[in-house]
Amino acid sequence: MPESPIRKLVPYSEIAKKKGVKVYHLNIGQPDIKTPEVAMNAIKNLDFKVLEYSHSAGFESYRKKLSAYYTNHGLPIATEDIIITTGGSEALLFAMGSTMDAGDEIIIPEPFYANYNGFSTASGVKVVPVISTIEEGFALPPIADFEKLITPKTKAILICNPGNPTGYLYTKEEMQQLAELVKKHDLFLIADEVYREFTYDGDEHYSVMNIPGLEQHAIMIDSVSKRYSMCGARIGCIVSKNKELMTAAMKFAQARLSPPTFAQIASEAALDTPQSYFDEVISEYKERRDTLITELNQIDGVMVAKPKGAFYCIAKLPVKNADDFAQWLLESYDFNGETVMVAPAAGFYSTPGVGLDEVRIAYVLKKEDLIKSVRILKEALKVYPN
Amino acid sequence: MPESPIRKLVPYSEIAKKKGVKVYHLNIGQPDIKTPEVAMNAIKNLDFKVLEYSHSAGFESYRKKLSAYYTNHGLPIATEDIIITTGGSEALLFAMGSTMDAGDEIIIPEPFYANYNGFSTASGVKVVPVISTIEEGFALPPIADFEKLITPKTKAILICNPGNPTGYLYTKEEMQQLAELVKKHDLFLIADEVYREFTYDGDEHYSVMNIPGLEQHAIMIDSVSKRYSMCGARIGCIVSKNKELMTAAMKFAQARLSPPTFAQIASEAALDTPQSYFDEVISEYKERRDTLITELNQIDGVMVAKPKGAFYCIAKLPVKNADDFAQWLLESYDFNGETVMVAPAAGFYSTPGVGLDEVRIAYVLKKEDLIKSVRILKEALKVYPN
Ligand SMILES: Cc1ncc(COP(=O)(O)O)c(C=O)c1O
Ligand SMILES: Cc1ncc(COP(=O)(O)O)c(C=O)c1O
Repeated sequence: MPESPIRKLVPYSEIAKKKGVKVYHLNIGQPDIKTPEVAMNAIKNLDFKVLEYSHSAGFESYRKKLSAYYTNHGLPIATEDIIITTGGSEALLFAMGSTMDAGDEIIIPEPFYANYNGFSTASGVKVVPVISTIEEGFALPPIADFEKLITPKTKAILICNPGNPTGYLYTKEEMQQLAELVKKHDLFLIADEVYREFTYDGDEHYSVMNIPGLEQHAIMIDSVSKRYSMCGARIGCIVSKNKELMTAAMKFAQARLSPPTFAQIASEAALDTPQSYFDEVISEYKERRDTLITELNQIDGVMVAKPKGAFYCIAKLPVKNADDFAQWLLESYDFNGETVMVAPAAGFYSTPGVGLDEVRIAYVLKKEDLIKSVRILKEALKVYPN
Repeated sequence: MPESPIRKLVPYSEIAKKKGVKVYHLNIGQPDIKTPEVAMNAIKNLDFKVLEYSHSAGFESYRKKLSAYYTNHGLPIATEDIIITTGGSEALLFAMGSTMDAGDEIIIPEPFYANYNGFSTASGVKVVPVISTIEEGFALPPIADFEKLITPKTKAILICNPGNPTGYLYTKEEMQQLAELVKKHDLFLIADEVYREFTYDGDEHYSVMNIPGLEQHAIMIDSVSKRYSMCGARIGCIVSKNKELMTAAMKFAQARLSPPTFAQIASEAALDTPQSYFDEVISEYKERRDTLITELNQIDGVMVAKPKGAFYCIAKLPVKNADDFAQWLLESYDFNGETVMVAPAAGFYSTPGVGLDEVRIAYVLKKEDLIKSVRILKEALKVYPN
């Protein structure tokens, strides 16, 4: 199992804290946004006596309501197209396990969510990366780049849309190119859409479930973690209209008996969250993003791809090794008693030696803290012994 | 992925119910016992605003209290020996993933919990069964039977103690024999002890964590599902003093981010459940078991191994094919408008053709219903066209 890119830094952040240095965490994906009250109230008002297993596919009532939610959002998803999972994480594990055998290959545009490595390792599957670049704003690499990598062992392409760590939002045209490709080579297109609601500037999210004719190839991964700031619920789902695939996924679901009951109840209630909640959240993130990007652009030598979705961005820094820099920030630096923790981006690439001068920054802190954090980065870069 | 032995029968139980026939479910492991009030109250009284991820190993406070609980129960388990998992199910997956690579082998006495097949398949691991028999009451097979099966690919032995589906409780001597064996061949001994509290007749449970000198080989699997009748929580743990193993397991834990937050809070509170709760539960199960065994023994041609723990037993029936019989009970039979659903035991064996005339019966129903159920079985066997 590969080590997470952030985990290695944790001991150094402990050192900083022990010295009394305040650490701004730009490295995490845990939002500070409030969980909707409807969800919390559903839990406080529980009145059953036995905390039972649910159906392995999740409570029928929840799946029905979720289907209605998707339909309302323009996604033609039926109750039977959904299996509730323990977070998007488990949905990814089921998707890999159900589409691939040990030794098979999955193509993923990099940089990608580092835990894809862990799920691949657990499934015995080989990750084949295709590089997307900061210079192109992390747009979809040319289809020819994918085709070059397809072998008889290739079973799926996995994309994250909007992207963690890139913040990139695939256009309708890019999605259609991918659709043609997977149909041509009879592959699955697995789309991790856990950040679907987080798009800015009026750009619309184009889901893998919206591509006509792709029904037998499309697998969507979803989660309540970010949508409702319910990361601790551990509720997500795998969605597909391919019956054979869903039958295979159900076997994984049955082996582990059921997804969490309390959290399913909260997630079902969360579907009644008023639109005003999302409007506020999105406008908060948009402000944070704009602040972050504006501030970062004012640092000499820093390059950043403006994110169109999710709440991360990749920044290229004027350093040789962002891993060292991130460690140095925690171990040896402070600006008026404060420092920042960033995620070195190399951990999000699978190709060795790529992204060494990049970091991922999550804008999950409030505006004032983001401004302070970027100021710290700026000052640090002036004195960092590169 | 293999099909669960019970799942195949579900459509037939639906048919019975549609005909208006009442079905007694002797096939499931979902207790009807009340969840402790301390656990439910902890959830009703929650007062945080953001439902966050916990630490990947679980909340520190929970792990500390769990360590104290184990210590009080005579198991020398430290906080750092514990990783909280999403049910015992995930602990089993982590145990297999951390001890074995694809293609490796795990030896399991059969009949065994059918989902071990699913976790093995998901991990690319081969199950090598060693047969235990109803005639021997499902005691540990001779060590020589294990040794014959050990190859360079064998990495672990997995036992369930007390056993599902057998109800067998391994003696201290049997545990020590296994300990010698795994030390001799440098294997892991994974003990699924999720039914640890359910022992009757004053027999004591002897845990894998209690064997001196086995620290580097012992892995314990635990769960709150049965102990507190909290199956829907999805909280369990993997326990070991082997640091390298725990480091490997942590990588799986980190990839899936965290176990469920609500349920960890409930599980931590459940540790304050008064002893009187367990006393009542155990005496209830003991009565159920005694009733069930007495009644079963009164049917001609039925043989049953009296369970010493858990809440299952295997019964050998005077039928050729228990799978057919179970289906016939649901599809074609009723006694005064009632029938029973049992789990054909063949699904708990990995060796083809073994256990064909056996069923697993769970005593998770109240006494009166158990009596009625066995009466139905008895009448059914009289008229079943074998
Ligand atoms: C891209 C992506 N996919 C999946 C997940 C998994 O989230 P969860 O298991 O909490 O649903 C995350 C969490 O950060 C993520 O960033
Ligand atoms: C022997 C055994 N192990 C593990 C489990 C998994 O239980 P859970 O995942 O609910 O902890 C069960 C559930 O029935 C079981 O019978």
